[in-house]
Amino acid sequence: MGRILCAGLGPGDPDLMSVRADRAIRSARHVAYFRKKGRPGQARRIVEHLLAPGVAEYAMEYPVTTELAFDSPAYIQQLAAFYDDWAARLAALAREADVVVLCEGDPFFYGSFMHLHTRLQGRPGVEVEVIPGMPGMVGCWSATQTPFTWGDDVLVVLMGTLPEADLVRHMRTADALVIMKTGRNLPRVRSALSATGRLGQAWLVERGTMPGQRVVPLAEVDGSDCPYFAIVLVHGQGRRPEVPA
Amino acid sequence: MGRILCAGLGPGDPDLMSVRADRAIRSARHVAYFRKKGRPGQARRIVEHLLAPGVAEYAMEYPVTTELAFDSPAYIQQLAAFYDDWAARLAALAREADVVVLCEGDPFFYGSFMHLHTRLQGRPGVEVEVIPGMPGMVGCWSATQTPFTWGDDVLVVLMGTLPEADLVRHMRTADALVIMKTGRNLPRVRSALSATGRLGQAWLVERGTMPGQRVVPLAEVDGSDCPYFAIVLVHGQGRRPEVPA
Repeated sequence: MGRILCAGLGPGDPDLMSVRADRAIRSARHVAYFRKKGRPGQARRIVEHLLAPGVAEYAMEYPVTTELAFDSPAYIQQLAAFYDDWAARLAALAREADVVVLCEGDPFFYGSFMHLHTRLQGRPGVEVEVIPGMPGMVGCWSATQTPFTWGDDVLVVLMGTLPEADLVRHMRTADALVIMKTGRNLPRVRSALSATGRLGQAWLVERGTMPGQRVVPLAEVDGSDCPYFAIVLVHGQGRRPEVPA
Repeated sequence: MGRILCAGLGPGDPDLMSVRADRAIRSARHVAYFRKKGRPGQARRIVEHLLAPGVAEYAMEYPVTTELAFDSPAYIQQLAAFYDDWAARLAALAREADVVVLCEGDPFFYGSFMHLHTRLQGRPGVEVEVIPGMPGMVGCWSATQTPFTWGDDVLVVLMGTLPEADLVRHMRTADALVIMKTGRNLPRVRSALSATGRLGQAWLVERGTMPGQRVVPLAEVDGSDCPYFAIVLVHGQGRRPEVPA
């Protein structure tokens, strides 16, 4: 029985990985990770100083996306074929030896590994195990050095890819807000925050817990500045016993 | 300059603590933690096998709550005095030696430590540092062994303490759902899920990642069964490239 072990890497600082993930990665003989073609890959960078000498590496490079919209049938088909292929390759490999798949944040929280996980269910001779990780948003709100949710605050997590009307509708119902997948969607996210009167309380956290971390009020960010590894946060203000003056 | 270091303990399994928190707790000379009067305390239990011999322990026992409603002015005043007192005691202690405060889950995510954090801001001679932790909900959705949020799913996190009408309103707008602080609120949470047609997809995770973990469809749970350390989850079903048949 082979084993595919998906290790959640946490928000980026290797010290914020779980003890179990750290141990699994240090002792791994085979590691696989997603990356964009031609890039070193964020997951691979996080484990740079943990991998044992001589480890076999498998870079799972996403199909090139510049020509196709992320929701076009052609791209979805390419992506499905890519996941099918790697699920088969990892399953074959796992029959020989354990394979550790690296996954930023938590594997079950908007993670690419979920597409492999689904395809590996019930495959004979392969066992899949997931080590949870700290989601990137936790590292980001920690970087603001300010408590994030209080009492009975309602937290809403949104993707910046949503249409502006949806962003606005959800922002109206939330106390605390997390907006992920910002990047080129940042102008739309800003506009929705402004429409709901929340831009003044929003923070942009770029490369949270990683070298070059930047924590800045979103209102002060130039419109043309669209960092990729960035999360937008609005802190909750819920119930709390009064602090003495 | 003394230091108060709040270590996020994660969902309960000590192996899911961060490498940094694990290191801080193992080398601590002074540890403080919240607990209910007369109980060992969940935070203290998690670190049972990590504490160094001879460590000094400070149990911060919540004022007794059975007589007073959690939102009554008298209780809020008692609680404020309790946090004022411990903020002062920890600050005095920290001037002599570093103090590690234990906090389940992530300290900035509905954590009691936030009430101390607020009171310790700007206090001369004391530096406060927070080590983020994996929120309990991450351990719980991981325990279901099923991916939790996909594509552009909207995740909403609710407290079971909210009125039923609020629960219903927020459940209607969510794709994936987390409901914390269930316990005696479970019948209301169930009723709201039922009213929004989501009871059939809901899971109850009790003592997630801990000994005695139970993962069960909420619809199968008896109404009188109100476990305390339990989170209710509804998985998202968002966009994903098709899995081959």
